[in-house]
Amino acid sequence: MRIDRPHDQERPLAQTAAHERLARYRAVRRATEALIRSLTPEDMGAQSMPDASPTKWHLAHTTWFFETFMLTPGLPGYRVFDPRFGYLFNSYYEAEGPRQPRPARGLITRPSIADVLAYRAHVDAAMERLLTAAGEGPLELLDLGLAHEEQHQELILMDILHLFAQSPLSPAFAPPRPPLASVPTPPLAYVEFAGGLVQMGHDSGPGAPFAFDNEGPRHRVWLEPFRLADRLVTNGEWLRFMADGGYERPEFWLSDGWAMARAEGWRAPFYWRESPDGWRVMGLTGLRPLDPAQPVSHVSYYEADAYAAWAGARLPTEAEWEHAASSVPIEGNFAGSGRLCAQPAPAGEGLRQMFGDLWEWTRSAYLPYPGFRPAAGAVGEYNGKFMSGQFVLRGGCCATPAGHVRRTYRNFFYPQQRWMFSGVRLAMDGA
Amino acid sequence: MRIDRPHDQERPLAQTAAHERLARYRAVRRATEALIRSLTPEDMGAQSMPDASPTKWHLAHTTWFFETFMLTPGLPGYRVFDPRFGYLFNSYYEAEGPRQPRPARGLITRPSIADVLAYRAHVDAAMERLLTAAGEGPLELLDLGLAHEEQHQELILMDILHLFAQSPLSPAFAPPRPPLASVPTPPLAYVEFAGGLVQMGHDSGPGAPFAFDNEGPRHRVWLEPFRLADRLVTNGEWLRFMADGGYERPEFWLSDGWAMARAEGWRAPFYWRESPDGWRVMGLTGLRPLDPAQPVSHVSYYEADAYAAWAGARLPTEAEWEHAASSVPIEGNFAGSGRLCAQPAPAGEGLRQMFGDLWEWTRSAYLPYPGFRPAAGAVGEYNGKFMSGQFVLRGGCCATPAGHVRRTYRNFFYPQQRWMFSGVRLAMDGA
Amino acid sequence: MRIDRPHDQERPLAQTAAHERLARYRAVRRATEALIRSLTPEDMGAQSMPDASPTKWHLAHTTWFFETFMLTPGLPGYRVFDPRFGYLFNSYYEAEGPRQPRPARGLITRPSIADVLAYRAHVDAAMERLLTAAGEGPLELLDLGLAHEEQHQELILMDILHLFAQSPLSPAFAPPRPPLASVPTPPLAYVEFAGGLVQMGHDSGPGAPFAFDNEGPRHRVWLEPFRLADRLVTNGEWLRFMADGGYERPEFWLSDGWAMARAEGWRAPFYWRESPDGWRVMGLTGLRPLDPAQPVSHVSYYEADAYAAWAGARLPTEAEWEHAASSVPIEGNFAGSGRLCAQPAPAGEGLRQMFGDLWEWTRSAYLPYPGFRPAAGAVGEYNGKFMSGQFVLRGGCCATPAGHVRRTYRNFFYPQQRWMFSGVRLAMDGA
Amino acid sequence: MRIDRPHDQERPLAQTAAHERLARYRAVRRATEALIRSLTPEDMGAQSMPDASPTKWHLAHTTWFFETFMLTPGLPGYRVFDPRFGYLFNSYYEAEGPRQPRPARGLITRPSIADVLAYRAHVDAAMERLLTAAGEGPLELLDLGLAHEEQHQELILMDILHLFAQSPLSPAFAPPRPPLASVPTPPLAYVEFAGGLVQMGHDSGPGAPFAFDNEGPRHRVWLEPFRLADRLVTNGEWLRFMADGGYERPEFWLSDGWAMARAEGWRAPFYWRESPDGWRVMGLTGLRPLDPAQPVSHVSYYEADAYAAWAGARLPTEAEWEHAASSVPIEGNFAGSGRLCAQPAPAGEGLRQMFGDLWEWTRSAYLPYPGFRPAAGAVGEYNGKFMSGQFVLRGGCCATPAGHVRRTYRNFFYPQQRWMFSGVRLAMDGA
Ligand SMILES: [Fe+3]
Ligand SMILES: [Fe+3]
Ligand SMILES: [Fe+3]
Ligand SMILES: [Fe+3]
Repeated sequence: MRIDRPHDQERPLAQTAAHERLARYRAVRRATEALIRSLTPEDMGAQSMPDASPTKWHLAHTTWFFETFMLTPGLPGYRVFDPRFGYLFNSYYEAEGPRQPRPARGLITRPSIADVLAYRAHVDAAMERLLTAAGEGPLELLDLGLAHEEQHQELILMDILHLFAQSPLSPAFAPPRPPLASVPTPPLAYVEFAGGLVQMGHDSGPGAPFAFDNEGPRHRVWLEPFRLADRLVTNGEWLRFMADGGYERPEFWLSDGWAMARAEGWRAPFYWRESPDGWRVMGLTGLRPLDPAQPVSHVSYYEADAYAAWAGARLPTEAEWEHAASSVPIEGNFAGSGRLCAQPAPAGEGLRQMFGDLWEWTRSAYLPYPGFRPAAGAVGEYNGKFMSGQFVLRGGCCATPAGHVRRTYRNFFYPQQRWMFSGVRLAMDGA
Repeated sequence: MRIDRPHDQERPLAQTAAHERLARYRAVRRATEALIRSLTPEDMGAQSMPDASPTKWHLAHTTWFFETFMLTPGLPGYRVFDPRFGYLFNSYYEAEGPRQPRPARGLITRPSIADVLAYRAHVDAAMERLLTAAGEGPLELLDLGLAHEEQHQELILMDILHLFAQSPLSPAFAPPRPPLASVPTPPLAYVEFAGGLVQMGHDSGPGAPFAFDNEGPRHRVWLEPFRLADRLVTNGEWLRFMADGGYERPEFWLSDGWAMARAEGWRAPFYWRESPDGWRVMGLTGLRPLDPAQPVSHVSYYEADAYAAWAGARLPTEAEWEHAASSVPIEGNFAGSGRLCAQPAPAGEGLRQMFGDLWEWTRSAYLPYPGFRPAAGAVGEYNGKFMSGQFVLRGGCCATPAGHVRRTYRNFFYPQQRWMFSGVRLAMDGA
Repeated sequence: MRIDRPHDQERPLAQTAAHERLARYRAVRRATEALIRSLTPEDMGAQSMPDASPTKWHLAHTTWFFETFMLTPGLPGYRVFDPRFGYLFNSYYEAEGPRQPRPARGLITRPSIADVLAYRAHVDAAMERLLTAAGEGPLELLDLGLAHEEQHQELILMDILHLFAQSPLSPAFAPPRPPLASVPTPPLAYVEFAGGLVQMGHDSGPGAPFAFDNEGPRHRVWLEPFRLADRLVTNGEWLRFMADGGYERPEFWLSDGWAMARAEGWRAPFYWRESPDGWRVMGLTGLRPLDPAQPVSHVSYYEADAYAAWAGARLPTEAEWEHAASSVPIEGNFAGSGRLCAQPAPAGEGLRQMFGDLWEWTRSAYLPYPGFRPAAGAVGEYNGKFMSGQFVLRGGCCATPAGHVRRTYRNFFYPQQRWMFSGVRLAMDGA
Repeated sequence: MRIDRPHDQERPLAQTAAHERLARYRAVRRATEALIRSLTPEDMGAQSMPDASPTKWHLAHTTWFFETFMLTPGLPGYRVFDPRFGYLFNSYYEAEGPRQPRPARGLITRPSIADVLAYRAHVDAAMERLLTAAGEGPLELLDLGLAHEEQHQELILMDILHLFAQSPLSPAFAPPRPPLASVPTPPLAYVEFAGGLVQMGHDSGPGAPFAFDNEGPRHRVWLEPFRLADRLVTNGEWLRFMADGGYERPEFWLSDGWAMARAEGWRAPFYWRESPDGWRVMGLTGLRPLDPAQPVSHVSYYEADAYAAWAGARLPTEAEWEHAASSVPIEGNFAGSGRLCAQPAPAGEGLRQMFGDLWEWTRSAYLPYPGFRPAAGAVGEYNGKFMSGQFVLRGGCCATPAGHVRRTYRNFFYPQQRWMFSGVRLAMDGA
């Protein structure tokens, strides 16, 4: 499946022509709004767990980001839409002052969704002025603001799925697409890499295209020889793990993972539901029979690691993954495909599903690269302050906007989290 | 202030003419729907704490009550609107099967409010047929169903106030009414009662007007002489309690209350907010300056009891209260007044504010009367199973529908709860 | 079984001769110390839950009580043993200042048990001086101090049982006595009472024998006719309740009780343990096979109430119990018997097991009697501040010192608590 | 301060002469028992938090380790001391079956300390037979068993300090030593390292001296140039951090750390206590005035990281630390010095305090090295299953037995933990 990336950005937007950045800004903002077509005001107001946020909150928060970090400091005469929104829609920027407690975002029933859309329009109009007129300086954060909004597009999908999965009615966010021509799952093969002294991370010299601060600096790492699976682990393979006592045998599990699995009663991936007719899987297209050919999705790091131990393999490090990905085109099943769930691996040889389909757990903790420095000011809180306790995931997923990820892109979650579109690619030590 | 009771019911509705019960049914159902005029779909979907429920849930649950306990068993050929609603909108009837966990009612974003109103219309149409055609038997639970719906009208107001009180925007449910002509608070006086062997509780013989099962049987109790305050404790008096260290001095407090007050950081009634301009009080008409003449509202049993100890008094028992109320007309500031908050005591002599304004804490635990038997079947769960750990409140409040309460009416809450319209009337031992 | 009460006190100890009060003081203090014979220092230092306290703490706390409330104010020149002990061994007297948090009493490894026994000796020596010399005034609290120590004797037994029940080794506090000659359990019969206007509570005029403040004042209550079971519910009867789904059928349970039973996984009384050979019961004499003739013990109010509902009966009120007990001698299986567990009901007619064996749950909330006033000063915290949320139990148990209880004696626990020696006597409405 | 390492082991004990391994075994076991000289039975039985264990439990658990992993499989005819001890004293070996829940270790009042010492003697006698007679195979785990016991020697000290720090009496485990001749704290200097491709980790070929499995395999890593502080951060420097708002300014903190610090009310290191005379520090020698020249101790990773951010520096990686330590002798202030607290840095040049004094937080997550494989069998659970969520600390501390640590030694704790002897060494990127 070839998914064209809609923008193949070679330099910061601040250095592009006004019409180009305007087009890009509009495209991203409209894409966000396109997500709410099937949602009711109640759907958009509810918060199903502290980790998730209401759709309405995402719509407003991304707007607050542009207002706070670009319009207020950069557009002379800009009038803040509502001064109380800073409290309501700041996510975690301590430098920007106090804010609505995260677990209470579902209690913000006012402003209504109509008010939030008016807020978006107000900010969009001002941004159009800024994008048309401003020089490079005030636009420095434009790429960040748009990348931020794209991240929240994915969060909207993750959070809506979580919400709908709590409902006894199992609503569908979108209708299912006809399945791709079914092919038997190809046997898992490993691709060999020799390792050695390699480079990884984003090179952020002047004029370099945008990347998050946590992707750099580019630096050297030594890799021992390793092998990487050519596709993701499937539901069918996961069923074999389960049938072999995968969730009942502590010898496969990390200690923290075992404790969590016991405490929470885990016995299958997050969105699997047992029914008289066998397993079903809740997804953005509703509750559907399990497809053994699809990649297993919504598993925690603990489960991924236990599976790898059971399979006699391990998870890759992020350096291994990035090195392996260096020659793979950034194509795959992203949100633009409209499928909104991971697809079976295509037939063929070599690494498949590296981009799109599912975020791939690595065994690397999310930590700063050598020489990392967070950006100055409040946006320095964007990434750096989360560098403890989480693991890196790579490659994007079926809910990620096409064009959003890079080979150097580092996503990160806590090892017990399961509501993101996370999957498993195995690795092994090389010969 | 004279508030006419809209219905002065002398016998069960099942024994009235069809047009009479139809009128009563319609009036109650329309009154519920009138409450949502100022609310958005998001307001009606949110749940601000496990004790509270979304407005939408109240609208559907009361409807489910008629469907489940009257239509399904009593109307031949009735078709259930949606068989999944039983799971969603059953509150606590174990006999009716499993149900949505109470703290997760805010996650029911589907059905939408429009769907719920359609559900109401469907049930109303069927109820009209039942009310027109049916004999006494199938209508046995009509009074209960309507009293139940009235209770949920009050809960809608309590719960919306709680939700709006969580919002940094402090929305108002309704515009404030012009204040009544201000009169100085009359000094607190006590009315004397001689006690003796008295009767209390509802007499539920055949043809008797409706009352909840927990109000009976009527039975004898011995009362020692006592004195009852002629009005409610005011905000101004409560300020003196606070100024005297009321929230910092354990000697006034029950042990459980002191522990709770410490753990939760209580230092004023539930909806009081400190501001640079002094105390404000959040209410259904928004966040407004504290009025010292208004009765203090939204206090827990623990606070009420501590206040009484500080004042050298005590709370009345429910037997004392009911005995004192026996000659007081059931009039007062109920929801029909549209004020939606407690009003200053009118000038005059004798017991005032006994009905309406605020529910009055008694020192009586909510326990069965001698000879109490819960009703048969699922509706037997209505009251009886809550008879541990709670205290009785009497008299109704400014959010209670007029005509709903009786002299024998027993409301009940846990001693730490504060989100209902609860106030304090003092009592003392007699001479 | 006739158990002589060791003292049949007709007036306050302050009004007795010095040798008499000295004898009584010594007897109570020695009885406490006799309890630790089989215990190791580790046994006496451990705290198995926040509700329980280490034996060592009990030994010191009762001593602190005499020191604080009698010696410091009443014995000229008394030197406090260690000024830091006030912090360590104050239980809940807010008026006496801050104290070791209750759940952290097991962390008081110093002072050692030897130090605590030295503390006891120091206080005993001073008390001997006070008891010999003092007039009535300084001795006013002597009865209270001794009754207090007796209560802690029972608590030591309750708390050691709880501790030993946590141990996989199931240690025995004492060796079992040979069983009484086995008699078949007599069928349960009910004794009828006509009710009417009766008196209850302790009459505390001058010269009256000691009672706790919560037992008075004596006052009138109206009782409807009732019937009271002539013996306690047995283990055998409880097995039938369980076999009939007693722990799985919500229709028998109070709502709070059902929630607690689900949350905690209750499926049998607190100290019952399932084994391949059937149920065993952990007790002070170790883990022993269940005896169907013994009264069921260590049940919560919720379980007692559910059992009564299942049995078509109810629990008695405390007024009913006290009225029925008025002609029953205060004899029974108290701690002095050395059996340390409830015994099968003796053959015969009329009320049996009213005193001793097990505390009997009543359906009465623990609330103040009409006219109740707590004592002045810190000891006013003894009883009154616990008057919310608890239920009254009557009659004493096999761990209660003989002579400690009265017909008016009110014990109280929360409805979910189970570690005390609590049992069930049924009641019914009269004809 | 030169602290001789008592054993400078060049090969596995299984390959040494019988008298040599006997001497080593006895030395370690006697060292454990020497720790309890000042402790009472109550001290040894109490558990002050779930992370800590009673001394008695440590004494028994280390013994169980030898019994389970060496005697039962390796000594023909060995009789287990008490078959119930496996349940009581297994720490976390799932392969060895169920066990006493960790937070309930303080409830094991039986066996008594005397019984546990008898258990030790029983196992020691059997071990002497095994050590005398056995060939290399059965002795394979001897090094592990002794290293394990040494780790628990340190845990005993950590846990006793935690217990005593909960006591209002602040007992001392040991008398303080006279302070070393006081020297002014030398200014902090940085030692430069060029980095490059270096080796790290333990080389575990045949005949190699013992190391834990998590220290290997030896492997290459690429290091960028870096600088390492020549001594630990002192209390005096930490006071400046605090005076500059260190605990109140979120800009220095990781997000999880800030949340933890707010939730727990952190405002100083774990064992600092404010008093009218200024800060005091609770330690194994009691509660003593803060010494500004001593290294700051008992800080979490979050605090260490925040301090580094405040200081314009960072924490070292474990690879940097190990590389820098490669030429430093393994000498320092270990438990053998008897000081039991970190000492001021000695005057001089170059890296000081690398070994002993305090464990040094690194910014490296505790993860497997390339090629890591846990040992086969139950002892494979020793280290590998903890490889998520923790950070590595290096170098040993004043409570670590001399000779226990290696340059490759990896200790690990969660970032919020504070009860171990942890300190801070700063690092910076190189030129
Ligand atoms: Fe954001
Ligand atoms: Fe209801
Ligand atoms: Fe006490
Ligand atoms: Fe261990």
